[in-house]
Amino acid sequence: MAEVVSFRKDPSKAGEGALVIPQLSDGVLRLTLSNPPANALSIAVMETLIGELQSAAEDAAVRVVIIASTGNVFSAGHDLKELTAHRADEDGGEAFFEETFALAADLMLEITRLPKPVIAEIDGLATAAGCQLVASCDLAICTDTATFCTPGVNIGLFCSTPMVAVTRAAHRKQAMEMLLTGETIDAPTAKDFGLVNRIVPKQYLTQVVTKYASVIASKSPLTLKLGKEAFYRQLEMPVEEAYSYAAQVMVDNMLTADAEEGIGAFLSKRTPQWTGE
Amino acid sequence: MAEVVSFRKDPSKAGEGALVIPQLSDGVLRLTLSNPPANALSIAVMETLIGELQSAAEDAAVRVVIIASTGNVFSAGHDLKELTAHRADEDGGEAFFEETFALAADLMLEITRLPKPVIAEIDGLATAAGCQLVASCDLAICTDTATFCTPGVNIGLFCSTPMVAVTRAAHRKQAMEMLLTGETIDAPTAKDFGLVNRIVPKQYLTQVVTKYASVIASKSPLTLKLGKEAFYRQLEMPVEEAYSYAAQVMVDNMLTADAEEGIGAFLSKRTPQWTGE
Amino acid sequence: MAEVVSFRKDPSKAGEGALVIPQLSDGVLRLTLSNPPANALSIAVMETLIGELQSAAEDAAVRVVIIASTGNVFSAGHDLKELTAHRADEDGGEAFFEETFALAADLMLEITRLPKPVIAEIDGLATAAGCQLVASCDLAICTDTATFCTPGVNIGLFCSTPMVAVTRAAHRKQAMEMLLTGETIDAPTAKDFGLVNRIVPKQYLTQVVTKYASVIASKSPLTLKLGKEAFYRQLEMPVEEAYSYAAQVMVDNMLTADAEEGIGAFLSKRTPQWTGE
Repeated sequence: MAEVVSFRKDPSKAGEGALVIPQLSDGVLRLTLSNPPANALSIAVMETLIGELQSAAEDAAVRVVIIASTGNVFSAGHDLKELTAHRADEDGGEAFFEETFALAADLMLEITRLPKPVIAEIDGLATAAGCQLVASCDLAICTDTATFCTPGVNIGLFCSTPMVAVTRAAHRKQAMEMLLTGETIDAPTAKDFGLVNRIVPKQYLTQVVTKYASVIASKSPLTLKLGKEAFYRQLEMPVEEAYSYAAQVMVDNMLTADAEEGIGAFLSKRTPQWTGE
Repeated sequence: MAEVVSFRKDPSKAGEGALVIPQLSDGVLRLTLSNPPANALSIAVMETLIGELQSAAEDAAVRVVIIASTGNVFSAGHDLKELTAHRADEDGGEAFFEETFALAADLMLEITRLPKPVIAEIDGLATAAGCQLVASCDLAICTDTATFCTPGVNIGLFCSTPMVAVTRAAHRKQAMEMLLTGETIDAPTAKDFGLVNRIVPKQYLTQVVTKYASVIASKSPLTLKLGKEAFYRQLEMPVEEAYSYAAQVMVDNMLTADAEEGIGAFLSKRTPQWTGE
Repeated sequence: MAEVVSFRKDPSKAGEGALVIPQLSDGVLRLTLSNPPANALSIAVMETLIGELQSAAEDAAVRVVIIASTGNVFSAGHDLKELTAHRADEDGGEAFFEETFALAADLMLEITRLPKPVIAEIDGLATAAGCQLVASCDLAICTDTATFCTPGVNIGLFCSTPMVAVTRAAHRKQAMEMLLTGETIDAPTAKDFGLVNRIVPKQYLTQVVTKYASVIASKSPLTLKLGKEAFYRQLEMPVEEAYSYAAQVMVDNMLTADAEEGIGAFLSKRTPQWTGE
């Protein structure tokens, strides 16, 4: 991970072989998948992404993360050649398969656990675990030509882990249609389904996503951390418990310096200065 | 609360200073927030609303409740001046903040627990706890110029309690977008997100909401009570448990006089006469 | 049940009196409700449907199930005359009501538990338990003139069991609107709500549904079984548990011959041959 961190801190060192290109600018860390041609989520790519996210968690200079990609495919999901090669293992690949799917689950949970918002920027096809990655980010913005699918059923491997993320983003019948037919949906359908937040013409994608990220990066990092953590935690609670918990989060938040500053600035119509405390 | 109850029973006494104006007509209790300019949910307003709801629960004359507002703002949420003033308390406001957010949670839960349907009638801006109030009502109908936001993140105070209601009404990515950006969404977007049921031109808002309320008020109050309670309870159960529970609710409902009357009236093509038993 | 099974195996024997007409063709079992005029879900119809589904579960020749109907009504739900007749029972009908609603719950759960996808093909009105049947199928495709409602509230009998399925398919405010008003929604609204996947002109309904079924029937039955079971199970788990479980399902799936065949076929650009192992 050390090398990865140094990549991020000095993007110029990322060089030709980097699987994920990190660029930090104005509090926004842009992580670009660079594993052509399909930006497959190989073990190496997933480990690199997890390492980047863990570093970002610790780095006060990072306020928002964007996950983007190079080329025409956002991500085609797991590396089928890598998986298939391990069928030659003594155990028929079982240990490697376990590692792969556990690592993918870790990556997705790492995104939701990161105390900073994560935006998926999707150009091209997001398929299988690539679609899972989109569904797992806090927000997702795509081009009008982006497409999405969970096509595992076509190759005898139901997209069961992508399903965890997709069914939590979309209505169940719509998720089931993607999973059972394996067919590709276009960007407007993905927006209808709840998989993406916004559709942008291709030439403006990065600009719009960067603007979203900048708007969010201008908020108090402490407030974002408290809020994002509460978001995912309360979703899994019965409503009364969720309210008890969220009410306590509000009290804790009110007692931060940033809330005092923010509310004070609002009432006196000036711009707040966050200290992150 | 006594005074409030008397307000409701004799609206003419509500007078100038009333924070919530109650009007009962044909089984429909209209509660109008009247705390200008922003209809802030101060402690006094929340207590008054809770008192009104508790009285409505006991009052057989009330069959449906509408929560509406005066002025251009449906509700701007908690009273930031009131909250800020309590920073001067010995405990830095902690006890008051706890009271505020617990009371807000009580108010929202009171709405879902009320054995009578509650409709939000939204004209203008519903923000923060005001947006939570909309999300917490059973139904919500708004004007085409109504707007919605959870802007706490802008003032260092993430809308964590509004989030409990908003994430249970909308898809999570759409809820997250509101919460992270703090930006305002228009009525059609709110409808897409699942926050409102219907959009109506401003001049027809009250008429349409009243018609909805009248339609619902014409149903058996006992049936509405059984059904509304079951709605929220079964939502929090695993599906098999939900079916066991709901099947028992159906049996209990079948054994009421109103179901016998209603089914009999339907089969003989006459209008049912509810006894509420 | 034996007779029912023989109906399915030899559709020509279904004859005039069959409540559910089974037709098996190319792996697609079409179950047509035939209880005119309203295709009411009487005890006999529900038992027949459950019997058909249980037989289909065991029959390797069945890969996908379609539930369709004859006439202008998809299904009007429970048989109100049958229910009413049992008010004359010694217990006022209680035992019969229990049997009815428990059987309906069994039917709906049987659909989700069936290790093969089930598609609802809706022409005309789907109301009460008929709407529940639509909401309970894995996918639903309807005509542009199909309509949907949960009108129990109109007859003093809240649609509490249909609610279990409808609230799991749609956003809660939209579900609540259907339940509280009892009003009928059109096909585009049902699609917006998440109750149906696709709307098709009437003359193409069966053709489109059959094509969907054929596409799904061309997948590995074992993969469909693993995936469908995982779909409903993981939905009821907290996300971390869901990922642990789904990751194990992926590993198990990878170790099947069908996944090896499917991935191999994909990598070598040939058509897979499923063995169902």
